[in-house]
Amino acid sequence: MNKNKLFSFTATLLLGISSTFAQQPVDYVNPIIGTNGMGHTFPGSCTPFGLIQLSPDTDTIPHNVNGAYQKNAYEYCAGYQYRDKTIVGFSHTHLSGTGHSDLGDILLMPAVGELKLNPGRAENPDEGYRSRFNHATEKAAPGYYEVMLDDYGIKAQLTATQRVGVHKYTFPKDKNSHLVLDLAHGIYNYDGKVLWANLRVENDTLLTGYRITNGWARTNYTYFAISLSQPIKDYGYKDKAKVLYNGFWRRFKLEKNFPEITGRKIVAYFNFDTEQQPELVVKVALSAVSTEGAIKNLRAEAEGQSFEQLAEAARKSWNDELDHYEIEGTQDQKAMFYTSLYHTMINPSVYMDVDGSYRGLDHNIHQAKDFTNYTIFSLWDTYRAQHPFLNLIKPDRNADMVESMIKHQQQSVHGMLPVWSHMGNENWCMSGYHAVSVLSDAITKGVFTNTDEALAAMVSTSTVPYYEGVADYMKLGYIPLDKSGTAASSTLEYAYDDWTIYQTALKAGNKEVAENYRKRALNYRNIYDTTIGFARPRYSDGTFKKDFDVLQTYGEGFIEGNSWNFSFHVPHDVFGMMD
Amino acid sequence: MNKNKLFSFTATLLLGISSTFAQQPVDYVNPIIGTNGMGHTFPGSCTPFGLIQLSPDTDTIPHNVNGAYQKNAYEYCAGYQYRDKTIVGFSHTHLSGTGHSDLGDILLMPAVGELKLNPGRAENPDEGYRSRFNHATEKAAPGYYEVMLDDYGIKAQLTATQRVGVHKYTFPKDKNSHLVLDLAHGIYNYDGKVLWANLRVENDTLLTGYRITNGWARTNYTYFAISLSQPIKDYGYKDKAKVLYNGFWRRFKLEKNFPEITGRKIVAYFNFDTEQQPELVVKVALSAVSTEGAIKNLRAEAEGQSFEQLAEAARKSWNDELDHYEIEGTQDQKAMFYTSLYHTMINPSVYMDVDGSYRGLDHNIHQAKDFTNYTIFSLWDTYRAQHPFLNLIKPDRNADMVESMIKHQQQSVHGMLPVWSHMGNENWCMSGYHAVSVLSDAITKGVFTNTDEALAAMVSTSTVPYYEGVADYMKLGYIPLDKSGTAASSTLEYAYDDWTIYQTALKAGNKEVAENYRKRALNYRNIYDTTIGFARPRYSDGTFKKDFDVLQTYGEGFIEGNSWNFSFHVPHDVFGMMD
Repeated sequence: MNKNKLFSFTATLLLGISSTFAQQPVDYVNPIIGTNGMGHTFPGSCTPFGLIQLSPDTDTIPHNVNGAYQKNAYEYCAGYQYRDKTIVGFSHTHLSGTGHSDLGDILLMPAVGELKLNPGRAENPDEGYRSRFNHATEKAAPGYYEVMLDDYGIKAQLTATQRVGVHKYTFPKDKNSHLVLDLAHGIYNYDGKVLWANLRVENDTLLTGYRITNGWARTNYTYFAISLSQPIKDYGYKDKAKVLYNGFWRRFKLEKNFPEITGRKIVAYFNFDTEQQPELVVKVALSAVSTEGAIKNLRAEAEGQSFEQLAEAARKSWNDELDHYEIEGTQDQKAMFYTSLYHTMINPSVYMDVDGSYRGLDHNIHQAKDFTNYTIFSLWDTYRAQHPFLNLIKPDRNADMVESMIKHQQQSVHGMLPVWSHMGNENWCMSGYHAVSVLSDAITKGVFTNTDEALAAMVSTSTVPYYEGVADYMKLGYIPLDKSGTAASSTLEYAYDDWTIYQTALKAGNKEVAENYRKRALNYRNIYDTTIGFARPRYSDGTFKKDFDVLQTYGEGFIEGNSWNFSFHVPHDVFGMMD
Repeated sequence: MNKNKLFSFTATLLLGISSTFAQQPVDYVNPIIGTNGMGHTFPGSCTPFGLIQLSPDTDTIPHNVNGAYQKNAYEYCAGYQYRDKTIVGFSHTHLSGTGHSDLGDILLMPAVGELKLNPGRAENPDEGYRSRFNHATEKAAPGYYEVMLDDYGIKAQLTATQRVGVHKYTFPKDKNSHLVLDLAHGIYNYDGKVLWANLRVENDTLLTGYRITNGWARTNYTYFAISLSQPIKDYGYKDKAKVLYNGFWRRFKLEKNFPEITGRKIVAYFNFDTEQQPELVVKVALSAVSTEGAIKNLRAEAEGQSFEQLAEAARKSWNDELDHYEIEGTQDQKAMFYTSLYHTMINPSVYMDVDGSYRGLDHNIHQAKDFTNYTIFSLWDTYRAQHPFLNLIKPDRNADMVESMIKHQQQSVHGMLPVWSHMGNENWCMSGYHAVSVLSDAITKGVFTNTDEALAAMVSTSTVPYYEGVADYMKLGYIPLDKSGTAASSTLEYAYDDWTIYQTALKAGNKEVAENYRKRALNYRNIYDTTIGFARPRYSDGTFKKDFDVLQTYGEGFIEGNSWNFSFHVPHDVFGMMD
């Protein structure tokens, strides 16, 4: 490997990285890229494909208010907008680059002075616990993030392991320092998203708990264990939702120093005396299984190691993953290359405990045998490039992703591979059943070898009659427009997907399945209108749709193995949020 | 054992049992006893100490409406009132004989004709799925219940295994027969009690799912697996709560024949054609662990066995448990004896799957090694008689109950043995820490042998400073009335409990602990007012309370080892429900 090590670093400095001598791949990465507007990336800390994405959230725009969609929420898919002036806090899970959102689980915010238990609003930060910040104090690198919280004079540093988010807060010398743990915070939040939250103060340096949310991930279980480098002085919480039944828990003064806290909208606080010891290191391990699992993750990955050791390990893990290329170009081109490469290794993410336990699609706890379970499969976006790319550069990881998808299929009551899945949930976003393409690609390239298991999953997935027009598609050879708003695009997507099943069946030597899917793969012809030379939607009676005024054209695609373009014709609401 | 087998059965027949020849202990038991007024027993089917108590619920009085307590709910602690004219359905969990309530999980109701998805009201049964019934058609025996649902002409028969409720419905010949599964139903229900419910139609004869409730059991996880003897014709559900976020699930027609159902107030229905086959056997397995656990329980206990075989096994299991006594007396006296004996063997109840997995107080899943995990410990009620009795007649079960309590203590963030616990939750009802008395009794009688482990749990339990006056009790030797409304009674209860810890420490040979608790046991003297010859509440300044006009006297107790009576003086709200 021959890497040119001599560059000037003006460009990266301008981009916000403060490295003094960028000579390794990791130094070219700038996590700030994509954080303004609709890039939907986050600047915070994570490790390659890790469960944790620990990052600042800069506002609290809800997804909906009483069911009415708030369109500004879309800008906060990854929790952070570069133009914002305040940081609400640091939460542990973020989607990267997606066109819809969720997560923002387990938000921590350090503070000093008057205790505030609501985040406040951007236009008046002083009314809440959020703080102003300035990009001049912000440093973002793979596995490391730093910022000054100006309202409090607190320096915040973040790093991560696969399953542990690590915070180092340097407080001013003050007897009145706080750590706020907002279990009601979330990305794409709404009133009622948190179904239930639970928090236990196990001792003065260990917290455990969990929350269950109903968001884009329909039922999302997030367990945590939080270790603190300094003992808590005292603590308490506020529950912002009226709990109609407290039973005999009313015997206790629950709000103050009572170690078992439960409710729908819990905001807890922990007070510290930072006069003698201004530094507080907080290690937050997550698990989708249990608090016991979170503690195991914490012990395995972060116990006994300093913030600095863990930050260096995170940086090294990124460099190891990035350091496989010989590239030449300008500083900006290298920043672009390595940052893009970095962005291919955030999601999908590991979704299991260190002992191999994970929560399946059936909400039961499963044991991953001989593979690593992954989640966050945005397949309509990733089947064309991301997974084929991983097949080439990270074949072992992609093989495990394929196995994770097959397990999803086996746990699905629909018998379907993921369409768009995250955190042990199918969210049904976008169209097609493109996981079959990912499986086929991995099998064809020899990356995944259990062809029979994969083929069974693919056949099952492509024959679920109530899935978006499949019954009609199987009967008529196309999806009729009078039955579906995505009639043409889904027909083309299915035909392509079926071609990949055909290829897999050939590989498996299963002639019957191969012949069936060879025919299905030709279904694209059924909506090809020879009069215009394009595919277009067709009705049940066989006629083509003639007017397009109510439809919008969103993009172009390319049918592999054929040499003509087609248009996607889809009604706007398919891309829209909930109405 | 010499049992007199010749009796006339007039009395039991009058009591509602239809046995033709009662010659075994089980035949004397009449589960109807205690079902009217405030007896708080249920007439339905269970096995000795089983997880399942499958029984008709005769109304739907909520515990509270917008937080306002509904006092009539108290009559429905066990779900059934003998005077009622309608049956709402058959639910699978019931407390027996308690003075507060919860549960009523997983309600099934068969119906014919127009589909109704609300229970309706007692005053107008036709508006809902509930049915009129007549006691003349009702048969109740240990492990067996039968009734005619008059509105539908459906004969309902119930039996149970330890973890499976078994229903046999004989429908009229009708193409329009239904089974309603109301996941919003509950005893001591209220708007919001069900935090989340999930239902999967795995295939046309198997359903799985769960619900999480926030009731007296603060966070109660109830998983189920339901097998059906006939295939479902079609099915659907209604969600009575507005779900503000459905994401892309809106792509599907979720309400009809969609096999994955989720929400807060789910009422599902399953349609059957009973023209050819009028009988439907429904086996409902429960688990607190997972749907996988429920399926394991179903397979282990009920698969491949007919309703009649299971009913006979349930009857036999009761007879085996009851058949240890030589008694003489009238028919009524024997009914009273065996029914009372029966009532001692419903709660506590087994709370683990057939593979030993159970949900602990920390909400994590634990594995019971060499013991059976039990729940429902109403200790203020049961430490005096129930557990000492079990020590004599069922020592192995009581030893496991003691082990279950110690596990609870080890899983408790408070380090406390149960006060009043059920379904993996502490509900904090009533006073004292009387589990220590149960442990001490079992140790003293040689039933439980891990004395050191028990003693550690007892000491931990009795030294939690924020538990009802304990800090003051340890400092002053009594709980001052200005700090607690149960100052005198709790002081006396603690002093007695401490005497049992003293006895245990003696047994363990731990002189230091023994001496400490010997002194604590004498604390009863600190509130003994020599001027009246009774214990009475005392203030922090040492003076006794002189007037009792604002207090009510609820009962009398007896300090073991001392020969004088005392009065419990407690403010009404301790016994009251939520206000």
